[in-house]
Amino acid sequence: MIARRLSAITPFHVMALLARARQLEAEGRFVVHMEIGEPDFVSPTPIIEAGIKALQAGYTHYTPSGGLPALREAIANDYQARFGVAIAPGRILVTPGASGALQLIIAALVDPGSRVLMTDPGYPCNRNFVYLYDGEPVAVPVDAKHDYQFDRETLEAHWTDNTVAALIASPSNPTGTALSRPRMAELRQVVRRHGGHLIVDEIYQNLYYGDKPFTALELGDDVFVINSFSKYFGMTGWRLGWLVAPEAFIEPLNILAQNLFLAAPTPAQYAALAAFGPETRRILEERREAFRTRRDYLLPALQSLGFVIHAEPAGAFYLYADCSRFSDDSFGFADTLLETAGVAVTPGIDFGSHNANRYLRFAYTTSLEQLQLGVARIKAFAGQ
Amino acid sequence: MIARRLSAITPFHVMALLARARQLEAEGRFVVHMEIGEPDFVSPTPIIEAGIKALQAGYTHYTPSGGLPALREAIANDYQARFGVAIAPGRILVTPGASGALQLIIAALVDPGSRVLMTDPGYPCNRNFVYLYDGEPVAVPVDAKHDYQFDRETLEAHWTDNTVAALIASPSNPTGTALSRPRMAELRQVVRRHGGHLIVDEIYQNLYYGDKPFTALELGDDVFVINSFSKYFGMTGWRLGWLVAPEAFIEPLNILAQNLFLAAPTPAQYAALAAFGPETRRILEERREAFRTRRDYLLPALQSLGFVIHAEPAGAFYLYADCSRFSDDSFGFADTLLETAGVAVTPGIDFGSHNANRYLRFAYTTSLEQLQLGVARIKAFAGQ
Repeated sequence: MIARRLSAITPFHVMALLARARQLEAEGRFVVHMEIGEPDFVSPTPIIEAGIKALQAGYTHYTPSGGLPALREAIANDYQARFGVAIAPGRILVTPGASGALQLIIAALVDPGSRVLMTDPGYPCNRNFVYLYDGEPVAVPVDAKHDYQFDRETLEAHWTDNTVAALIASPSNPTGTALSRPRMAELRQVVRRHGGHLIVDEIYQNLYYGDKPFTALELGDDVFVINSFSKYFGMTGWRLGWLVAPEAFIEPLNILAQNLFLAAPTPAQYAALAAFGPETRRILEERREAFRTRRDYLLPALQSLGFVIHAEPAGAFYLYADCSRFSDDSFGFADTLLETAGVAVTPGIDFGSHNANRYLRFAYTTSLEQLQLGVARIKAFAGQ
Repeated sequence: MIARRLSAITPFHVMALLARARQLEAEGRFVVHMEIGEPDFVSPTPIIEAGIKALQAGYTHYTPSGGLPALREAIANDYQARFGVAIAPGRILVTPGASGALQLIIAALVDPGSRVLMTDPGYPCNRNFVYLYDGEPVAVPVDAKHDYQFDRETLEAHWTDNTVAALIASPSNPTGTALSRPRMAELRQVVRRHGGHLIVDEIYQNLYYGDKPFTALELGDDVFVINSFSKYFGMTGWRLGWLVAPEAFIEPLNILAQNLFLAAPTPAQYAALAAFGPETRRILEERREAFRTRRDYLLPALQSLGFVIHAEPAGAFYLYADCSRFSDDSFGFADTLLETAGVAVTPGIDFGSHNANRYLRFAYTTSLEQLQLGVARIKAFAGQ
């Protein structure tokens, strides 16, 4: 007998699509990959070198469950340097990926039957973590007029007695849209008034192409923040992230971490000590510019093909494109694009159900040349 | 509000004891560490070199969620070579530590209220994983006359309608005792008759000092097996383990793994490809001999001091010692040993409640010289 919760936890459709793409490639087809939520760059050289050095030094034992003290300090220093926010290193727990961080927080906040509000569209694992703990994820439809994010009224309207938290991501996956500081502050007020918790996913925080980004930690020390070395820092495979939690939650979260993970991977933690150095920063900012250049190419190119991007994608590496000019079945359309045009994209259904049939997510996690090839293929496919 | 499940998940007492030991060390005291469940050896050189090579080659992206195909194959080949058991690589999922493996299995088997039978004494995280999923861990008292393991009658007597699984560890932490193949086969029959699942923790399988070890996978393809690169392979900090599951569970477990972890750490997986090579095996077998030598010293040494080891510790690196000759409060006695004699050991209460006040766990995860020093200190402390 399989536990009931598993019936709610479904595979990502993009996995089947990716498998089919690999199969086509094995048959000799060349596929343009715009479906993958992972930077194409390898980890910056200083990070790799720090990892190698740690291994040469024999740092292969467990670290403390909350992470290397030096890494917790480095993260705290970065918050101070970049955002002017003082975070005690003791409020930071280093985790196996942002996934580990989110799991700890959900396990600590959600009783069976508790509700967590999140946006539809949104990152699909979020709801699954809530199902995992027998809670009820409430996928709240959000539209382009609110940048696919919560607004005060919508959040207020969906809050119920058994709601314990709201989860927001800024910039968001799949839309790339970000919340302004005043709007996030409003959302925090709604959550506080109800005695709930605000969880902010900031894993794309530094992949932001507008003015200076901010952190939800500026709003107060009651906010849960999730972050990651994966996306901006280019360390996906190392599995390293962190959380910042209100003081009162740190001890229980740390006990949970001891039990669930023992600790985050040691080589990754030593490697990440090099993530905040000036040379790494220079490389990462160059990459951010490369992502921005890709976005600045892809956004108008898709528009000229007839896709509609309804809200400004200010960050991450995604465009959430309305494809209803081509099809009212984006799931089938993604299949067709792959089979006929050799272009892999992710159907909206992986991010929720609200108008999902009208949307595709394009990831610009491949080179400008590949993006141009992809656009040319779609153009030819559409007979333009 | 903190989720109710957290009230059941308690910190390990050894953590406070370890912190106190570190404090004494900072004050200039020299402490003999016999409390730590982690090999003192660093990872074998071929493993470290394989990790370095992977980093130099830029292997820093995600792997498939079930693990590198080559690693799943290498694990399958090892089962074939060492135990003569044919396991399809597709039945093996590579996980972030054995912790990740256990979490997947518990999440897949336990509904809120479901019972999982486990031994008392036993590894303390086991019960916490069940609490995490709002199940009910049933800690069944087991005694030295059954090697601190389940026997058929005991398992039968504790099975109820809402019991879904029994979890056994062989060799066991904290006792080092192992089950024979016929006894494990009997336990499997009990579980099968009730339509339940048998989960076997084999993370100390290769740290066995008796005749050839065996794997529960020999008994049939209905058994869940957990294993790890941490203990025998000396890769604790890399966070890498695996599970073998019945065919029907692989797809749901893999979907869970995608959601929970995305994948196990990539550098660790490449490093582990070197874990089965002949040079690594030579190093590991040398280390196993070193552990055996330590056990062969420590066991009679503790006995001559007046500790009683009631059951043959055939594996792992632990001795579970009855200290009632010294104290009927092993928790307080562990504190006294640390403060007065400068020897750190783990009190029985970390492993359950059944006669826990009479037991201490000694880990021989430090050099023979340190073990000798520890014994001399206890001897002096006891006025012998």
